[in-house]
This record gives sequence, structure tokens and C-alpha cells, in this order.
Amino acid sequence: MQKITILIHCEDQKTIIASVTNYIGSIDGNITYLDQHVDPEENVFFMRLECEFENAKWDLEKIKINFEIEIAQRFNMSWEIYTQEYKPRMALFVSKYEHCLYDILGRYSAGELAIEIPLIISNHDDLRPIADRFNIPFHHVPFNKEIKQEGEQRQIALLQEYQVNFIVLARYMQIITPNLIGLYKNKIINIHHSFLPAFPGAKPYHSAFKRGVKIIGATSHYVTDELDEGPIIAQDITRVTHSHSIEDFIIKGKDVERSVLAKAIQLHAERKTMVYNNKTIIFT
Amino acid sequence: MQKITILIHCEDQKTIIASVTNYIGSIDGNITYLDQHVDPEENVFFMRLECEFENAKWDLEKIKINFEIEIAQRFNMSWEIYTQEYKPRMALFVSKYEHCLYDILGRYSAGELAIEIPLIISNHDDLRPIADRFNIPFHHVPFNKEIKQEGEQRQIALLQEYQVNFIVLARYMQIITPNLIGLYKNKIINIHHSFLPAFPGAKPYHSAFKRGVKIIGATSHYVTDELDEGPIIAQDITRVTHSHSIEDFIIKGKDVERSVLAKAIQLHAERKTMVYNNKTIIFT
Amino acid sequence: MQKITILIHCEDQKTIIASVTNYIGSIDGNITYLDQHVDPEENVFFMRLECEFENAKWDLEKIKINFEIEIAQRFNMSWEIYTQEYKPRMALFVSKYEHCLYDILGRYSAGELAIEIPLIISNHDDLRPIADRFNIPFHHVPFNKEIKQEGEQRQIALLQEYQVNFIVLARYMQIITPNLIGLYKNKIINIHHSFLPAFPGAKPYHSAFKRGVKIIGATSHYVTDELDEGPIIAQDITRVTHSHSIEDFIIKGKDVERSVLAKAIQLHAERKTMVYNNKTIIFT
Amino acid sequence: MQKITILIHCEDQKTIIASVTNYIGSIDGNITYLDQHVDPEENVFFMRLECEFENAKWDLEKIKINFEIEIAQRFNMSWEIYTQEYKPRMALFVSKYEHCLYDILGRYSAGELAIEIPLIISNHDDLRPIADRFNIPFHHVPFNKEIKQEGEQRQIALLQEYQVNFIVLARYMQIITPNLIGLYKNKIINIHHSFLPAFPGAKPYHSAFKRGVKIIGATSHYVTDELDEGPIIAQDITRVTHSHSIEDFIIKGKDVERSVLAKAIQLHAERKTMVYNNKTIIFT
Repeated sequence: MQKITILIHCEDQKTIIASVTNYIGSIDGNITYLDQHVDPEENVFFMRLECEFENAKWDLEKIKINFEIEIAQRFNMSWEIYTQEYKPRMALFVSKYEHCLYDILGRYSAGELAIEIPLIISNHDDLRPIADRFNIPFHHVPFNKEIKQEGEQRQIALLQEYQVNFIVLARYMQIITPNLIGLYKNKIINIHHSFLPAFPGAKPYHSAFKRGVKIIGATSHYVTDELDEGPIIAQDITRVTHSHSIEDFIIKGKDVERSVLAKAIQLHAERKTMVYNNKTIIFT
Repeated sequence: MQKITILIHCEDQKTIIASVTNYIGSIDGNITYLDQHVDPEENVFFMRLECEFENAKWDLEKIKINFEIEIAQRFNMSWEIYTQEYKPRMALFVSKYEHCLYDILGRYSAGELAIEIPLIISNHDDLRPIADRFNIPFHHVPFNKEIKQEGEQRQIALLQEYQVNFIVLARYMQIITPNLIGLYKNKIINIHHSFLPAFPGAKPYHSAFKRGVKIIGATSHYVTDELDEGPIIAQDITRVTHSHSIEDFIIKGKDVERSVLAKAIQLHAERKTMVYNNKTIIFT
Repeated sequence: MQKITILIHCEDQKTIIASVTNYIGSIDGNITYLDQHVDPEENVFFMRLECEFENAKWDLEKIKINFEIEIAQRFNMSWEIYTQEYKPRMALFVSKYEHCLYDILGRYSAGELAIEIPLIISNHDDLRPIADRFNIPFHHVPFNKEIKQEGEQRQIALLQEYQVNFIVLARYMQIITPNLIGLYKNKIINIHHSFLPAFPGAKPYHSAFKRGVKIIGATSHYVTDELDEGPIIAQDITRVTHSHSIEDFIIKGKDVERSVLAKAIQLHAERKTMVYNNKTIIFT
Repeated sequence: MQKITILIHCEDQKTIIASVTNYIGSIDGNITYLDQHVDPEENVFFMRLECEFENAKWDLEKIKINFEIEIAQRFNMSWEIYTQEYKPRMALFVSKYEHCLYDILGRYSAGELAIEIPLIISNHDDLRPIADRFNIPFHHVPFNKEIKQEGEQRQIALLQEYQVNFIVLARYMQIITPNLIGLYKNKIINIHHSFLPAFPGAKPYHSAFKRGVKIIGATSHYVTDELDEGPIIAQDITRVTHSHSIEDFIIKGKDVERSVLAKAIQLHAERKTMVYNNKTIIFT
């Protein structure tokens, strides 16, 4: 059996679902999953569909061409098709915090993530031993305001050399440049250590402590040019009390950061996210 | 605009979705929601679909007849169609606990539940003042092992008199008879005060306390002939510690019972549940 | 048995706990609960203590006087003592939303809250029938910017007439005046329909929807002169997805508002809250 | 500053707290944390206390001796004192599942756990490469019903050789022998992949799937001679729907197993657990 995932979005119109499902039926595909969403404000239609084909009749290129001609052009659709075998190549950007790095590499090594991790890029050399431990190439690319341009060029060169499909900032502490964001639109995932939009920017645990909140959280989002304002992929929270210090907030927060980032990576890798209007549609 | 909800289940076959959505398109309906599920073990297909029709072209009876002839017979489907206006009539069975009763009547009076509550039946007279407060007919129907048959007959007579569509046991402390279960198959909702299948039967909070669990819960399920074994609709939990007494468990548990039962009522009233193989499919 | 709760705060010093517990022992009290907290930044000590006395030896006034002389003066303590029988008198302020009102009155009538509710005050007359249903005096006190002074005077007169100890704003939609806040310092509880500090002010569900968050929440806090900036008592959250509309946010949010406000009322009524430095200490 | 943690339990009596806190005061200690619990059914008193001493006056042995003579003997107390520096030595038992192993080793390497991990013991050789990656001695100790005695002897010899203080079964798939349990009473922590007491024994995810539950969980507990019946340390849950397969349950469950086991290790390592009457007291 061959299995594919199709992602579609276009202006909402009548008979889209019927037309797409008819088409799948006409090429002897069997639909195993279908979920759709209509944004009533913007009148946009989104669909995620999984279907199976018997090996004998399988011709991916033909499917793509015919889908474009018979369906997509009629509805003026944007669409993507992924085979089940496809594993996107993910670059990890880190700085000095190791908890998310360990968590991702542990899950990756245990075969839980349908991705390849060809390289790790860091603005510090501190975490190289962890990369070595997991046999993943580690590149130290210094970066700060002064050397922004060189840093960006080196980053982009590495991403191209390693044929990277998407980027995960695992507590990477530098700003991503607009050029890089432009090259990886909706393909750079950040973990922010607060429940956005509460406490954007630096030191959110300190601000949460000062405000006396009873719940702290973490937010994974796609990176846009507006800091901490990109489309949210996943959020989770944990409870705190007056008895917790800022250090306790940080320790408890690490657990949430880890799990929220892992969830966002999984959703992205399994093609369960679509972005529209600075929001995500998350198919589950 | 007229809006309907269609629920379908049948053996899984190719082109079901295409056929149904084609049919909706052919009668100028606009699909606003579609969710489906295939049980791979039993090879059964389930679908929930919402669609809109312009008033001018609206003819519910014609839609039903043609759907049966053109679609349902072809796929050997079981199906139901509900209009948006339809409000099922719900009987409340209570005993002496008032927390779920107050919660349901409060939500009902606030217009949060798309149901009618034509009557309350109780095996005790204690909660009559609450029914009076909300102007809902209250019927005291004594019930115990000795007078099971009379009790059941009186219950059934009342349910028929008030044209009841489904029943909610809001901490009703008597067994429902097989006859009544048979008349309201998958239409009697119970709230059990534990996280089933942990602690079925009587006094679950006492058992949970004795076992030293760190989490307690509540389970809403359809009633079947097997006590506490029916299809689960909704579950939720709350945390407890060594410092909580059994009385604390009971108080904390009430909050979970209230919200889980309210959620189950809402799901049932909005036709978001289907039952198969002693499990539920919950469309969201 | 007589049971009392003692709340203490003072500058942190050595031997406070020993001195207090010695004192309780010296008057034949039995400590059944003791929790303390030290704010290391401000060097302030907080303690909540429950103890029991046999009836024969019970003399509350003597306990209070001796505690003041023997303990409190030595450590320069602020302290309060409450008997188990004491039920604070709570005024409910409402506007047009009925969900929190129904929830509180249901819990109150079911005997779940250790309070008295002598009156309901509203700037609209809409919810009077609910108050009537529960036999609670309802006072319509018109209020807006133009008639702020008259409104405030009428509110204060009613609160005094009914000997109100604390106030709960159950989705009351008007600003509380600084005078009233001054009279009921740390004794006015509000429910804000967002996860503060995210989305303060009006229409938080609309803002949350626009931002595309995956979690919404509610926050109960003591009212201070700074809008939505007072000490947080309780917070909780619920999950939302791209498929939820603003109306769905509002409906789901109501459940969180209800339970968070009820929890805050319970904590306050049971003397489990202390306020310091615009934060709460919540003893559990 | 020197910091110690004291754990106490004894029959509940008047003036325990006063006596202990007086004693700490008398040796110039400053109490920074005190929590206590009384089991009213068994009439047992439990206390956890943290206090600080200035270096100059610090004499741990003298504190212990005097505490025994002046306090413990008077109240017939069981007690333990730990310095802040003390890091218990933990043996990891694993079989073939790697997710908990990676998680624990990642947290350990990141400095999040106040323990030493001197060795890993496994009944299979499969996970040796992971141990090597983290430079931790790995011992393959075959174990099954036939070679129970030899296996147990080899396990005990290794535990003694490496001076192990407590044992964590990170999805270890063999029964621990009564001898070993006797040697490490309330010092062997297991992670069971269900929300106990629901679904004890083998294949809990399969049973949960069959029952159609809406929530699955994991339970960490101390190991006793009764399988899956030991004192519960921590539990957590995650939500599932009809759309999840057994494989999805297993994948989602891994996340809960990881975090619940890590939490239990942390609580045990920080001396925040006490066991009594097959239940735990968890100080937070």
C-alpha cells in the first residue's frame, strides 16, 4: 500500500469536498482520513486528507499532474502532497540551554519523530558534546548584532548545504534575521517560555513571578518578523503557587517547554499544520 | 438559511464521502462541517455532516426521501437527520444529591443547553423544592427492589406522557431496569463518580481514598445492562493529595461530576455522539 | 470541640513557629493544621494554623487577648482569628450575565459555600427573577460614569445596611470606585474572563480569537485601583482549536469563569488567602 | 550556610511541633520550610522540615545525637536527617523500551536531578549503546522465571557493589523478587503505563482502547510484593479520542510515562515522600 497526505486551501466554494473525493475515487484511492475547516470571516477552505493506493496502480507524478489539471485549477487551489515515506530534514538551533536539546535528541534517537536531523547550529560552542554524543554534526556559528550579516550568511549556507526543510529554535537566544525568515516562511518553529501573549520578550518567568500568576506556560509558534507574534502551534501550562521561587518557575517551566516544543515538531513533521492569517489550523 | 445535521454509519466502502457530498451539492446544499471516522477493526464508517440550504429551496421531507433512495440504500446506511431547531426533550432522574441538578437547571435556565426539560423524576421527594424553584414538573416515583415493576411502569408512563427523547441520571441512586434501557437504547446518560473503569459500583471516593490515588475523576456514559460498563461519553479528573479526607474527595469530586455530566448532555443534545461496539464516537 | 483558624504575618524572625505552637500548647489547644510561607525577598513570614479546643476550656476572648499580649506584640504581628462557625456575609454584584450567578446560587443553596448571601446588587434589573427564585433580596442600583457618585453612595449604604464582609463581582460590568475599594480592601473578588495578564480589559475572548491562542482562561483576583492588576487568587484554562468561533470561546469560557470564581469564593470564605505585595498566598 | 531536611513520623501527640521547632531554635537553626500531616484514622503525625545553620556552629553529628535524645525518644519518633549535599545513588533497571531511559539520562546530564546514577541493569543487551552514549556502566543481567535466583543474586551483588540507595524501574519488564523488595523497602520506584487502579497488569493500553476510555494515564509507585498495588507517588493523564488507535495510545502514553516517572524520581531524591499504610505523603 502507498499512502499520501494532501493539504489544500482555497477560497470556499460549493462542491470542493465532493470534487476532491470523487477524484480520489476515480483513481482507485481509498480515503482513510478527511478533515476540513472553513474560515467564515475570510471565506477560506482548508482540507487535510489521507488516502491509500494499491501498489500496482501507484504513480505519484501522474496523480500530482492530474490533480492539478482536474481539480486544483478549477478551484484555484494551493495544495501539497506528501508520501508517507517523506521525512523532512530539520535543523536545530541552540544556544546554552540543554533541556530541549536532550529531549528532542532522545525522542529522535528513540524513533519517535518522523524527521531527519542533519545538523545542529549554535551561537555558542557549549553544547557540542551533546551533539557528539548523538553523532550529529554541530556547527558553531557566532552571532550577535555586530556580526549579523556574516552569521546569517553562514547559517543560510549551512542550511542549503544540508538541504534543510525546516528549523527548530530549541531555546536559541538570538534573533532570526528577516532574510532567513523569508527563506523559511512558516518553517521556523520557536519555543517561547511563557503563555503568549502574556510575557513576550526576555525573562518571562521573572515577570510571571512578579505578577503572582498561578499558572505558567510555554508557547510554540512559527517565527515571523514580529518577535513572539507568529502563528501559535501549541501551548501548555503548569500550575505554580506562592511557595515557588523564580528558580522553581524555571525548573517547572522546562518541563512544559520540552513537551510543547516536541508536540509542535511532531505536528509539523506529520503535516498537520496549516498557516493562514497569522493563525494555525491544527489537524488532529 | 436552514441548517441540518446528518449522522451516518455503514460498512466502510469506497466513494461514500464522494457520494454523500455530491448529493448535498446536487440539492444546492453547502457543507459547513464534515467529520468522519473509520473503525479499522470492524470496518465501519461513521460520518457527521452539517449543511445549509437557502430557505426558498428547502424541503426537508424531500431531502430525506431522496437521501434514502439515492444514497442510503446504495451503501446500506443507517442515518439520521436533525434540523437546527430540533430540541430533544430530556427527563432528569434524581435522588437526594442536588449539585448536578442545580448545575443542569442553572445552565438550562441560562439558555446554554439546546434541550427541553419537561419533567424531573425522583425516587425521593427531597428535591421537589428545587424543581419548583425552576418551575419544572417534579414526579416522585418511589423505587426499590421490592417495587421495581410498579416503579418502572410509572417511569415509562411518565416518559411517554411527556414525550421524552432522552434521560439523564443526575446522581440517581437506583438501578435502571432492562425494559427501560431497552426503550431508550443509547439514550440514558449516567454520571459515575469515578474515573471508570477504576472504582465501579458504590462508594468510589472511599475506595479511591483507601488506595491513595493522586487523581480522582468522573465518567459520563450511556447506560447498558452491565452496571458502569456502558459506552463512555466524557471523563475528567481533579488532583488530590494525602491532605485530603474522603469528605474533601467528595467535595472536589462534585465539581468534576457537574462539568462532565453537563458536557455529556451538551454532546448528546448537539448530536455529536455515535455509539458502536460499546464505545462512543465523539465529533467535536 | 471548638475549632479556630489563625492567620499571622510579620517580619521573618527566628522562633516564631516555636512561640506560636508553644502558646497553643500552653492553652491546651491541639494543632490540626499548620502551613507557613516566608517571602525571602521581603523577609515576611506568613502562617495559617488550625487548632481545636475542648469545649470546657474554651474562652475565645481570653485566647485573643493573651495571644496579643504574649505572642503578637513580641513579634510585631498582624493576626486574625476566626471560629469555625463564622460565615462571612457576601454581596453579589451582577449585571446581565447569569452563568456565574446561577452557579454561585446553586452551590450556595446546596450548602457548599460557608457564607451568607444577604443581597444581590445590579446595575440592571434583568437578573431580578433569578434572585427571586432563590429568595435573595435584589437591589437595582443604576451605575455609569455620569451617576458614579450616587451609585457608589447607594452601594455603600446597602453594604452597610446588610453588614457585608466581602463582595463578589460575578461578571459585574462597571468599574468599582476607589472609595468602595478602600472600604473593602482585599475583600472584593472579581472574575476576569481571560488568563491574566494576557488580554486585560474589554472583550478578551475576541482578542484571544484574533491572536489564535490554543488555550483560553479565566482569572479571579482581588480588586485594586489598577484595573485587572490586583492580586490573583485562582486561574484556570480550557483548550480551544482553530475550529472554535468567538461564540465557542465565550461558551467554553463560561465554564472556566464559573469554576474559577467558585474556587476563589471558597478560598476566601475559608480564610485560605492572604495578600502581600500585590500577590496572594493561598493555603491549601 | 548549611541546610538540612528532617523527616519525622510518630504517633500524633500534643506539642510535637512546638518541641521540634523549639529544639531547632535552641541550636540556632532557622526554619525555612515546615509542612506536617496528621492521619486522623491512624493517629499518625508526619513532618518535613528544612532549616539552615551558619557554618561556624555546624555540627551534624551533634545535632543528630541531641535530636535523638532530646526530642525523638520523648515522642517515640522515627526520623531521618539529610544534608543538602547528599545525592542518593540510583540504579536504573530497563528492558527494551528506551523513552524513559533517554528522558532520565537527558535530565540527569542536564543537572536537573539531585542524584548519582552509578549503573544501569537490564535483562536484555539492547539498550547498552544508550548507556555507552551517556558513559554509564551497563550490566546485562538475564532474568526470567527459570533463572530467578541467579538473576536476583547478580542484581543484589551489583547494587551492593555500586552502593545503590534506590532503584528505578524504567519500564523494566520483569518481576522484582521479594528478597530485593525487602532489601529496598519503599526504595524501588516503578512506572506503570495506566492510571492505576484501572488496568493493572500487562497491556493496559490495549485494555484502555477496548474499554473506550477518553483519558489514559500513568502511575509511578513504590514496588511492594503485590503487583501494581504499591503506594502511589505520582499520576498524570492525557486525553484520547475515538480517532486514536492502540498505537496512538502507546505513543501518547510514552509522554505521560516519561514525565510521571521523572516527577517521582525528583520527589524521592528531594526527600519529599513518606510512606505509611500503603499510601504516600508527598510534601511540596
